[in-house]
Amino acid sequence: MFSKETYVNRRAELKKLVKSGIIILFGNNESPANFPANGYYPFRQDSTFLYYFGPKRDGLVGVIDVDNDKELLIGNDIDIDDIVWYGSVDSVHDMAEHAGVKESAPMKQLQVICDNAMKEKRTIHFLPPYRHDTMIQIFDLLGIHPSKQREAASVELIKAVVKMRSTKEQQEIEEIERACAIGYKMHTTAMRVTKPGVTEKYVGGQVNGIANSYGAMVSFPTIFSQHGEIMHGNPSMAVLESGRLALCDCGGETMEHYCSDNTRTFPVNGKFTQRQLEIYSIVEDCHDLALKISKPGVKYFDVHMDVCRLMTDRLKELGLMMGDTEEAVRAGAHAMFLPHGLGHMMGMDVHDMEGLGQTYVGFDDETRPNLEQFGTNCLRMGRRLEEGFVVTDEPGIYFIPALIDEWRAKGLHKDFINYEKLETYKDFGGIRIEDDILITSDGCRFLGEERIPYHPKDVEDFMSKN
Amino acid sequence: MFSKETYVNRRAELKKLVKSGIIILFGNNESPANFPANGYYPFRQDSTFLYYFGPKRDGLVGVIDVDNDKELLIGNDIDIDDIVWYGSVDSVHDMAEHAGVKESAPMKQLQVICDNAMKEKRTIHFLPPYRHDTMIQIFDLLGIHPSKQREAASVELIKAVVKMRSTKEQQEIEEIERACAIGYKMHTTAMRVTKPGVTEKYVGGQVNGIANSYGAMVSFPTIFSQHGEIMHGNPSMAVLESGRLALCDCGGETMEHYCSDNTRTFPVNGKFTQRQLEIYSIVEDCHDLALKISKPGVKYFDVHMDVCRLMTDRLKELGLMMGDTEEAVRAGAHAMFLPHGLGHMMGMDVHDMEGLGQTYVGFDDETRPNLEQFGTNCLRMGRRLEEGFVVTDEPGIYFIPALIDEWRAKGLHKDFINYEKLETYKDFGGIRIEDDILITSDGCRFLGEERIPYHPKDVEDFMSKN
Ligand SMILES: [Mn+2]
Ligand SMILES: [Mn+2]
Repeated sequence: MFSKETYVNRRAELKKLVKSGIIILFGNNESPANFPANGYYPFRQDSTFLYYFGPKRDGLVGVIDVDNDKELLIGNDIDIDDIVWYGSVDSVHDMAEHAGVKESAPMKQLQVICDNAMKEKRTIHFLPPYRHDTMIQIFDLLGIHPSKQREAASVELIKAVVKMRSTKEQQEIEEIERACAIGYKMHTTAMRVTKPGVTEKYVGGQVNGIANSYGAMVSFPTIFSQHGEIMHGNPSMAVLESGRLALCDCGGETMEHYCSDNTRTFPVNGKFTQRQLEIYSIVEDCHDLALKISKPGVKYFDVHMDVCRLMTDRLKELGLMMGDTEEAVRAGAHAMFLPHGLGHMMGMDVHDMEGLGQTYVGFDDETRPNLEQFGTNCLRMGRRLEEGFVVTDEPGIYFIPALIDEWRAKGLHKDFINYEKLETYKDFGGIRIEDDILITSDGCRFLGEERIPYHPKDVEDFMSKN
Repeated sequence: MFSKETYVNRRAELKKLVKSGIIILFGNNESPANFPANGYYPFRQDSTFLYYFGPKRDGLVGVIDVDNDKELLIGNDIDIDDIVWYGSVDSVHDMAEHAGVKESAPMKQLQVICDNAMKEKRTIHFLPPYRHDTMIQIFDLLGIHPSKQREAASVELIKAVVKMRSTKEQQEIEEIERACAIGYKMHTTAMRVTKPGVTEKYVGGQVNGIANSYGAMVSFPTIFSQHGEIMHGNPSMAVLESGRLALCDCGGETMEHYCSDNTRTFPVNGKFTQRQLEIYSIVEDCHDLALKISKPGVKYFDVHMDVCRLMTDRLKELGLMMGDTEEAVRAGAHAMFLPHGLGHMMGMDVHDMEGLGQTYVGFDDETRPNLEQFGTNCLRMGRRLEEGFVVTDEPGIYFIPALIDEWRAKGLHKDFINYEKLETYKDFGGIRIEDDILITSDGCRFLGEERIPYHPKDVEDFMSKN
């Protein structure tokens, strides 16, 4: 946890932004995997609850009564049976105190609070729930069916939380640097254990082990695959083959639940082929371009588009694309190769605050998402960058056989895509390079003290030495 | 997956047992950790769904219409966007075919099926749900509030499933042996990396990494702690200290989702002290006693009680307990040291079928659980053993400061417990030894080809050599 003042100040700021009503922030509960008790997934507290209250235990709810300037931490204390099974934990009263909250109460109090607020017709602000147990809780408390809760969530509260969590405090940046240090260990482990003959699963498992050994957990399910063209490729039991590229997209989460998120793509046998280098160098230059031009005031949508143009120019040089670059990008032809956005906000959630609604996090009145165009519809971040934002820079080039076949059959973008040549790349896979960047007062910088090798020579050197 | 015939035969047997009505088996969905998409925990299919249908994808429901002898696999097919992000998967039609199911249908069909069945006043059998998204689904389909669903679940179906899944087929036993092989790697890794100065979390992380590298996942959250007296002690950031014992309770899960579950307790510095050996040898002998006397026809409750008596006898020799053994055990005084049961069923769930209700799984009309007495109320398995059952054998002795203080203050069992002496053990921790055993035609045997060292000399030898 951070200092008591941190939480007191954050809640004070939140109250100022939300102005009136009563705010309910639900903490998370244990999440069952295959049976109700003991069969749990690792506990993960809700990020917004952590941000404003701090405790990492299940079964808690934070209440902020803006109108009456009262704060309350709600939860049931544990008994001797719990202590025998799970060890001693702080009382709810003590947890409240650590967060500078004056009052605490048992869970049954929450229904009373909601009933009173509804009777007085006060606004009850809650965030869109993503855990189904929370949805049931909200249904019981407020009578709103789970399928209606996202639209019933408080836009004022969402906007206030997004505003605050978007700009990272110094102590948050330090936590993210710590997460990046874990990520460095994860990625260099992947590079070390990757070799022909081991399974994807073996490498993925070792990477996860590092995240578990040094932090709370992985910041998202580790992607490790020879099929880099599958965006979220789970490590399979397939054996790594010499001549192929392995794509590793993973990150760690600190004990305070701040994330890192990096991607590297490297040759299974430690040595790039000429064809791989040609594609790799495009992704590398796109990645470095974003780093060069990202700064306060620049729309991340424009950075994405600059990257798309550079990628298109370079793919034209290779004979994979053709025609006018500007027209090709406007039409969305480049999305054959880059069907996702350049990056996303990162913080306590690896896709920071995504649960609050991507439109509120990555866009604003000035930059609406384009939901019509394939590829562009996946952009998670379009709005102007500000000092203190943390975003990922993750261009990629993928050769997706199913997409090639579909577009070709439909005759899509045939003035811009050389399908003849593209056919010969169907066995290529995909390349992505991803780093986390902090927007500074006049530009941006990498997060993470040690750079995970990504220039081809550095990658080959590292893999030959380790 | 197993052969098509396996699933066909299992469903045929289930239909015979349930006799009439319509059975709905819900597969699991993705489970969000901290935001709705991408922020998922690793996908874990429901075990009973796996048992009768097999597919490991999310968003599926199996329907068995017993009255009309019709079977149906329900789920929505994926589209090109899903293929780009997650790769290609079988169609629902193909998955149905692999399981010998003749019909498939999209998810919206499920409401129609339920509406018709309700209109015709047919019995709709479903199992007690443990995932909250399934609870919402059942609420929408059948109008039963989540809090009423456990009692509305079908006792006939529960009993039929328990009957079938309790006795393991040969191919299931082979899978459990494979899980034990992963467990062996996990435990020997723990012994290898344990040493003074490393964190609990480091060891726990490496153990998890092995489970991830060789199987689907851990079979439950790994327990690794110097505080073995906490039954479910999560690995903390605390540094391992020479002179203490480390308790490691963990298991692997194969790609087919069969589990292993073992516990070892070993000295952080590789060498037991005399005091540790005295307690350890009691647990060792209790563990071996269970292995000696477990066989078909014997109640596991009686095995538990024999273990409690042996433990009490031996604790009396050490001066920690006193009085008449039989009386002490009947009164529950031994539960100060062993507050849990000797073991549980194991299979696709590490606590096999626990979600269906422990009473149905571990007890029967002849052996009701005693829910009144501390310790005995935690027994998960009391009924007569049968050939093909897989159970754990996991006695332990724990010195739980909070429990010692509480019982002493209340004056509990003071004729049987030497509180003076017990005070000097408050810094001891806890010891548990656990193995998985298969009930054979005339006895039982360990599962897992390679034995994880547990005799003190073997443990010390292993740790000095690795
Ligand atoms: Mn990313
Ligand atoms: Mn166990």
